[in-house]
Amino acid sequence: MTDTRRSRRSRPAAPARAGYGRLRHPFAPQPAFSDDEIAAMHDTALRVLEELGLRVLLDEARAIFRQAGALVDEDNGMVRIGRDMVSAALATAPRSIRLRAIDPAHDQQFEPGAALFMAGSGCPNVTDALRGRRPGSRESFVETLRLQQQFDVIHMHGPSAEPQDVPIHLRHYALMQEQLANCTKPLFVYARGRGQVAQSFEMIRLAHGLDESAFEDGVWATTVINSNSPRQLDIPMARGIIDFARAGQLSLITPFCLAGAMAPITVAGALVLQHAEALAGITLAQLARPGAPVAYGGFSSNVDMKSGSPAFGTPEHIRANLGSGQLARFLGLPWRSATGAASNAPDAQGATETVNALWAAMLAQATVTVHAAGWLEGGLTFGYEKFILDIEALQTLAELCRPAEADTDALAFEAIAEVPPGGHFFAAAHTMERYRTAFYAPLVADLSNHGLWTESGALTADQRATAIW
Amino acid sequence: MTDTRRSRRSRPAAPARAGYGRLRHPFAPQPAFSDDEIAAMHDTALRVLEELGLRVLLDEARAIFRQAGALVDEDNGMVRIGRDMVSAALATAPRSIRLRAIDPAHDQQFEPGAALFMAGSGCPNVTDALRGRRPGSRESFVETLRLQQQFDVIHMHGPSAEPQDVPIHLRHYALMQEQLANCTKPLFVYARGRGQVAQSFEMIRLAHGLDESAFEDGVWATTVINSNSPRQLDIPMARGIIDFARAGQLSLITPFCLAGAMAPITVAGALVLQHAEALAGITLAQLARPGAPVAYGGFSSNVDMKSGSPAFGTPEHIRANLGSGQLARFLGLPWRSATGAASNAPDAQGATETVNALWAAMLAQATVTVHAAGWLEGGLTFGYEKFILDIEALQTLAELCRPAEADTDALAFEAIAEVPPGGHFFAAAHTMERYRTAFYAPLVADLSNHGLWTESGALTADQRATAIW
Repeated sequence: MTDTRRSRRSRPAAPARAGYGRLRHPFAPQPAFSDDEIAAMHDTALRVLEELGLRVLLDEARAIFRQAGALVDEDNGMVRIGRDMVSAALATAPRSIRLRAIDPAHDQQFEPGAALFMAGSGCPNVTDALRGRRPGSRESFVETLRLQQQFDVIHMHGPSAEPQDVPIHLRHYALMQEQLANCTKPLFVYARGRGQVAQSFEMIRLAHGLDESAFEDGVWATTVINSNSPRQLDIPMARGIIDFARAGQLSLITPFCLAGAMAPITVAGALVLQHAEALAGITLAQLARPGAPVAYGGFSSNVDMKSGSPAFGTPEHIRANLGSGQLARFLGLPWRSATGAASNAPDAQGATETVNALWAAMLAQATVTVHAAGWLEGGLTFGYEKFILDIEALQTLAELCRPAEADTDALAFEAIAEVPPGGHFFAAAHTMERYRTAFYAPLVADLSNHGLWTESGALTADQRATAIW
Repeated sequence: MTDTRRSRRSRPAAPARAGYGRLRHPFAPQPAFSDDEIAAMHDTALRVLEELGLRVLLDEARAIFRQAGALVDEDNGMVRIGRDMVSAALATAPRSIRLRAIDPAHDQQFEPGAALFMAGSGCPNVTDALRGRRPGSRESFVETLRLQQQFDVIHMHGPSAEPQDVPIHLRHYALMQEQLANCTKPLFVYARGRGQVAQSFEMIRLAHGLDESAFEDGVWATTVINSNSPRQLDIPMARGIIDFARAGQLSLITPFCLAGAMAPITVAGALVLQHAEALAGITLAQLARPGAPVAYGGFSSNVDMKSGSPAFGTPEHIRANLGSGQLARFLGLPWRSATGAASNAPDAQGATETVNALWAAMLAQATVTVHAAGWLEGGLTFGYEKFILDIEALQTLAELCRPAEADTDALAFEAIAEVPPGGHFFAAAHTMERYRTAFYAPLVADLSNHGLWTESGALTADQRATAIW
């Protein structure tokens, strides 16, 4: 723990704030399905849980379900959950959750209407134009944490790149040490076993000088729970739900339902499976501790029929995102979405995939959008250039979270009167007063003309992004 | 005219239809301003027209305005238009316009709720990876027309690339000859003088065997009218409005208001100026012939503060698009929006710019979105690779115009029951019945894994697009 304490003293200064630190959704939610269809999906998911059930591999989780009245078959691990149990769980799940950060300026209220972003997470590899594609290391983990820390449009830290050079039994120490040393936003803990989770929580408490009750007064750590679709909850995931619930920490309960692979080939069918699995996880969390902080998770997309790979930013992914938002609103819970890119390069395909998915998450009013910057190859690689390019897209949307000026002065009648027909507004008083802050200043976009652009090396956006990270 | 008649006989077969030929908007319109703010913008625009006026350079146009009761100062060409005249014009402007094509399958109903796309238009240059950047020629004009013809998500032909190797006084013949020879969708005519317009209309009538009254029974030709912001209407544009109105052909009346340059620096102020100029143009068209087909045009964005270039896909452009949609709905008219990219290359910047602007146009319910595929350098160059990449984005959005399946079969309870926990849906009957058509099949996106992608040359999306065009 010595390293951790030291790191606390040398905590980095807060970065320059661009004003994107706390965002509320500016758009009305867009439906992909009718209200009746959403109600039918919910009902069908309840039927899946009641009539078909799901396999729960952890004894303790089955015991919790059995004690609450679920029908448990110990021979095959199947658990059938009645709709009353689900309703009771939904009644105790909180609607608004306070996320704590060591820098209170980075606290967040995690609730419907809030818009938070997390960087690309869980990538085994990293890549950049200077050093190429390589397995994630402790060094690259730190670098990618610092990138997350640098931009205030990233609101929660994610486990960007796996430090594969740290032995597995020590890796969770490294993940937490480096977050404590380099980060001041809400932290991430993997649910990879009871001991690791307990030790990670302990590191946070020690680093921040929190006793048990102070630690539980708000959420200091967030995890992602992925069920093993279809209809299976494995031992670490079930344990994670229980341990995070009991410690009052946040689980983003996120089935990863790929239509046509681990889920039915229709978007509606994939959403039914996602919804059933998410409800099962939420129910387990509330049984473990009523009131435990949980988020509904939606990460359904389609599988590419040519390659078998997960697809992102497709019509099916967009539609699944909009439908997930509807299902989350049907429950009244905050929810987690995701963007992503299947592209192997930070090119136009990658941009189109991520930007499409981002718009879908915004229109679906996702509370937190994971993998929002830096994800390539469907999550197999964290790209440094891709991260910078995605930050531009995030900042563009974040600007739209501010209300547009439209008072009399903004309507500019006087300025229009001042400038003669065919003239220009460059020197108008109205312009001079505002030009410094009127527009979003691009991070990586280069709007110079073709001649100037060629003279400065004809760099594409990904090449310019290299200089920025 | 001989060539034209010949071309009529050798008209190309209609392309394979992907089903995107007629689209209706799937999303609820998103506001950027409150209803009161929109009403204030409209009122301020009326004040601009009444109190400040605009300069009209064409004698005939001033005479038309004067005769209708406008206050005209012949010394300086200023025309002040009262709000009664504007109201009367809005009362006669049609809400729904039939666009005719020689292939009736490509007819369109141009009205609020419809979603049409036009390719990048008006570019002096073209570029592709094989031949580099070069001035537009008759050859490249034909190639880019054929690209537009090939994809049914492009609904109207646009004057993609200027054939600079054709002498100016003959260019309009070439533009129309090649459209008649290579295209079966609604056609475009530049408003570059009375003679050119009359000759272009005559070529259409001859090629299609239409008499005057058949020609006016629907819209066979569309033009774009750009006012010379701020507050000026030049001779060819004013003449174009009058000539198209009298011939019953469609004018997209589109001020190009760059906030901070030809328009006030605030988005709200730029929209006021845009609105005033569009209303002036619509009024002139309706005075020339009540009931003349016109569209409200919105193409306001911001100027980049570093380079002075027009910016696209920025927060300001997105907001201007949403506000333009509100103003068009306030009037009840169909309207024309635009995407665009300032990028010099078909890279991640270009994709982010165009895709952001496309989402804005969709959420603003633009009737037609111009420059939707192939625009680079803010319109100075038509990019062949960019065109292909943008078609992917358009087709993705077009897929969303189809309602999502959500009947009992789509909810897939039986399929979920059929697949055991932890299994997969690849071989499920539900999957087998649907896998051929379940998902959008990418045009240029490559979702293969990093190993396979590297083996096949590690081509970025723009490189793959070269093979497609």
